[in-house]
Amino acid sequence: MNADFGAPKEHAGGLQQRRALYQPRLPPCLQGPTVRAEYGDATTTIDPSCAHVLAQAFPNTFGQPLVSFVAPADAAAEERPPIRVGVVFSGRQSPGGHNVVWGLHDALKAYNPQSVLYGFVGGTEGLFANKTLEITDDVLASYKNQGGFDLLGRSIDQIRTTKQVSSAMATCHSLNLDGLVIIGGVTSNSDAAQLAETLIQNNCKTKVVGVPVSLNGDLKNQFVETTVGFDTVCKVNSQLVSNVCLDAISAGKYYYFVRLMGRKASHVAFECALQSHPNMLILGEEVALSKLTLMEIINKICDGVQARAELGKYHGVLVIPEGLIESIPEMYALIQEINILHNNNVPVAEMSSQLSPWAAALFQFLPPFIRRELLLHQESDNSAQLSQIDTEQLLAHLVETEMIKRTKEGRYKGRKFSSVCHFFGYQARGSIPSNFDCDYAYALGRISLHMIAAGLTGYMATVANLKDPVDKWRCAAAPLTAMMSLKRHLRGPGAIPIGKPSIHPSPIDLKGKAYELLREKASSFLLDDFYRTPGGIQFEGPGSDAKPITLTIENQDYVGDIEILKECLSKGALGRSSRRPSVPCYQ
Amino acid sequence: MNADFGAPKEHAGGLQQRRALYQPRLPPCLQGPTVRAEYGDATTTIDPSCAHVLAQAFPNTFGQPLVSFVAPADAAAEERPPIRVGVVFSGRQSPGGHNVVWGLHDALKAYNPQSVLYGFVGGTEGLFANKTLEITDDVLASYKNQGGFDLLGRSIDQIRTTKQVSSAMATCHSLNLDGLVIIGGVTSNSDAAQLAETLIQNNCKTKVVGVPVSLNGDLKNQFVETTVGFDTVCKVNSQLVSNVCLDAISAGKYYYFVRLMGRKASHVAFECALQSHPNMLILGEEVALSKLTLMEIINKICDGVQARAELGKYHGVLVIPEGLIESIPEMYALIQEINILHNNNVPVAEMSSQLSPWAAALFQFLPPFIRRELLLHQESDNSAQLSQIDTEQLLAHLVETEMIKRTKEGRYKGRKFSSVCHFFGYQARGSIPSNFDCDYAYALGRISLHMIAAGLTGYMATVANLKDPVDKWRCAAAPLTAMMSLKRHLRGPGAIPIGKPSIHPSPIDLKGKAYELLREKASSFLLDDFYRTPGGIQFEGPGSDAKPITLTIENQDYVGDIEILKECLSKGALGRSSRRPSVPCYQ
Repeated sequence: MNADFGAPKEHAGGLQQRRALYQPRLPPCLQGPTVRAEYGDATTTIDPSCAHVLAQAFPNTFGQPLVSFVAPADAAAEERPPIRVGVVFSGRQSPGGHNVVWGLHDALKAYNPQSVLYGFVGGTEGLFANKTLEITDDVLASYKNQGGFDLLGRSIDQIRTTKQVSSAMATCHSLNLDGLVIIGGVTSNSDAAQLAETLIQNNCKTKVVGVPVSLNGDLKNQFVETTVGFDTVCKVNSQLVSNVCLDAISAGKYYYFVRLMGRKASHVAFECALQSHPNMLILGEEVALSKLTLMEIINKICDGVQARAELGKYHGVLVIPEGLIESIPEMYALIQEINILHNNNVPVAEMSSQLSPWAAALFQFLPPFIRRELLLHQESDNSAQLSQIDTEQLLAHLVETEMIKRTKEGRYKGRKFSSVCHFFGYQARGSIPSNFDCDYAYALGRISLHMIAAGLTGYMATVANLKDPVDKWRCAAAPLTAMMSLKRHLRGPGAIPIGKPSIHPSPIDLKGKAYELLREKASSFLLDDFYRTPGGIQFEGPGSDAKPITLTIENQDYVGDIEILKECLSKGALGRSSRRPSVPCYQ
Repeated sequence: MNADFGAPKEHAGGLQQRRALYQPRLPPCLQGPTVRAEYGDATTTIDPSCAHVLAQAFPNTFGQPLVSFVAPADAAAEERPPIRVGVVFSGRQSPGGHNVVWGLHDALKAYNPQSVLYGFVGGTEGLFANKTLEITDDVLASYKNQGGFDLLGRSIDQIRTTKQVSSAMATCHSLNLDGLVIIGGVTSNSDAAQLAETLIQNNCKTKVVGVPVSLNGDLKNQFVETTVGFDTVCKVNSQLVSNVCLDAISAGKYYYFVRLMGRKASHVAFECALQSHPNMLILGEEVALSKLTLMEIINKICDGVQARAELGKYHGVLVIPEGLIESIPEMYALIQEINILHNNNVPVAEMSSQLSPWAAALFQFLPPFIRRELLLHQESDNSAQLSQIDTEQLLAHLVETEMIKRTKEGRYKGRKFSSVCHFFGYQARGSIPSNFDCDYAYALGRISLHMIAAGLTGYMATVANLKDPVDKWRCAAAPLTAMMSLKRHLRGPGAIPIGKPSIHPSPIDLKGKAYELLREKASSFLLDDFYRTPGGIQFEGPGSDAKPITLTIENQDYVGDIEILKECLSKGALGRSSRRPSVPCYQ
């Protein structure tokens, strides 16, 4: 019987409705109406050389202690006054965001049923304009464990300018908020730190709490193991990459150039490559470290295409991160010049004429579609709008040109190179969240309430031990300033920190075990086609509790899991070195 | 615990490995080593006016009876000589294709363990060149219930020219084949009919059997309810469409223009719209029927954008089929002219100068990227390569131009129109097949063997009652010629059939119940945003047996299911008319 359409009417919604009934698992310390807070030593910043700048910029919130939450010895005795909280989505939509609101709501009502939760409608613009929706059980009913940020929406994703900060403060005053919960990634949490400090300086009682929600997976540090949404987005994208791998090998005629959303750091691309084993992967971090130029990257890809052609293979899959373009030194310099022009409010039409001669020459070398895309910009931080730059098309275009050149020069004798380009981004971030993201987000939501109740401000809700089952999770609040640092103008020991303190995206650890194992397999991935099929997200049955590979691997004590990764990388998933049987194809 | 990486090593492959263990369910008649064939009356063609042409073209295979298969009264008595069979993938890769080979293999070995199955490596090119891989249990092990066509690959997807047909015949002779199983869609099965006839005429003993495998869902007629792969591809694409719907409403700033693979007929787009409720859907069949011009379509979309802007909505999702471009009358005429130039081997560089003045004018009006794409062509049938024509980008480009025009003329006063374009095709057709496609494909594979054993040629393996549980499925063999007809030069009763007989893609039934219900909801879909989240494919638990909606709906006796569809269409899946609560957003 068709479960979606033949089932009783109350089940007409199928999976979506069944997901609404999923009850996130809770770590033991969060199961009651209160927690006991344990205060650790004072924290400092990740980068000690920035400590004095941070101490100056954040006189009230720098150096706060780490706070751990444990189950209280006795919950009944305390008096718990009602609490008024506002919550805002400030960042690209990420699966699980709704569960933060749900967890916050449930904790708030368990703490004191008279408590009130306001959601800001339309993201930060709703915060500035004081446009609220009171979050109730009824309102939440259809958003539990669902994707998108459509309960409240999002807009400009920044609380930064003087006007924005004072509007936000006015709203906090006007609603008499005890707490404001800001859901977002690195930039939103940097803004949260600033807002927390400003509110104290202005005697506003509202406590500011950040929650790490970002598909990019780049908000990662000594306190934060991963962000809400990263697991789901990697699962959806890994399936899609795996599908194009099978498509490529089935017809044997196209190279697929796949760009994955994830901003500047390459975590999503890296995780998806670990899961699905495409032929080539170029990480922004590698390019930045080796200072590879655009033409060096093109030649590297062409060499791969040529090596495969010698094996009679005219198909393949290349995965790149959204932010690759910014990691290429000459493109970075060009983008920086454009960003400065944006900051100086130079109209787009005049930009190309105001570039330096060097940048103008590079700009003119690029195909027209890339030129147009480079001039777009990101409202939230005035940076290039990476999701709109078709880097995969730029690479495919230049690789084709180079392969034609090599053919003419007699250096390449294989069949014509053909490509198909994909950008996987928008179609993943609206996905129904995985069980892991549902649990993690809901727990963070509940922690946020306890942070406000404990009077903490300028903190982020965190959960450690995420690789373990939920009953081993450790809940805490980490000072936002302890995650902040300054940019450095030059690399190396003599480099001077510059700019405004902020939480910076954490890059892939190129010295880490996962990267080392992946790179050991690079030439085999390139030539052997042992594509792996991780499959789509499963909500029931044995696969439903899977987590990102890197989450388990990057904990170095956990040797068992590294062995599993090694095995996963050294074999196709069905236990042979290639899925294809003995007879070579298409030769 | 991470089920993929923390589980015992023998489970390192996770979902992929678990899928390999899935055993397809079998209808009762296929559970033994033999079946009993029941012969019905002689068949004729769908279109009686073509009967004489078909009778002439297929003197040996036209008018054969429908054959039903039932469980034999007593299987033990018969003698069963070993059978030699070849199998070839001839058509775009479609989830479930591997299970046809698996079912065929299992039935062949159950029939007589000395039987042999050859797979042609590299699709039809492997058939012509006699490049084989013997299919054994070992070879199959890692391809059971897996996506792609990578067990054997595919190439040009046609057996049509004299040279191709005689090469195929030579291979059948050389391998001494009792049967050849051709796995594909409308064009491959038309070729199968022709090959069957030619082999009889040349005294070749090989029986030719077609199997309906095609993601397009357009091989649909009195004998065939759906094709293998359609269910999976619709499920993957519905999820992706639903994800962009949630993405659209979350940020409220983009229109997503989504083109779905599926060739000329709009089944995939239609099914996905029934599942996910995007704001707008334009079917090729509607456009062809109403003879809508390109600019009429653009105006229709712009009116939708404008109506939504009046409600303060600046986001939306438009779904179109891959084949839309061919359904627009003036574009169809242009494409026909280009196809004729291809058939006359006119070089691509000279084509635009050889178009008629009328077609040349239209060609020049189109943006350069579309001009280039229109000149590509499909090897299998010399038609336009629809997957390579970015119709969604053409529409987005023209809608933007029109909205700017309306703004200048003061007819539109809303915010700037912004779009993001997607083509969902390659990333869906490589998916792991759904349980339904696994079962259906495996059954068709087993039926194919029984057809060859019964000496049937020029037939297609079929299963009826697919909407019911597997134990109610009815297995049969239908003559390919009974599905064939001629094209008509003009519409209406006086129209003369022309061209070569073939199986034509079946369009959406614009008089059917499903279409009627969808259209009743069109204006509500446009304005109310009650997006539905069908979710990705589930392999275990209550959602794992879901089937395409249209499969259940188009059976008119099945009123219960129509009620469910009505409910599904009249509500967001969580039981409210819109997921968004009372406060309107972004106003």
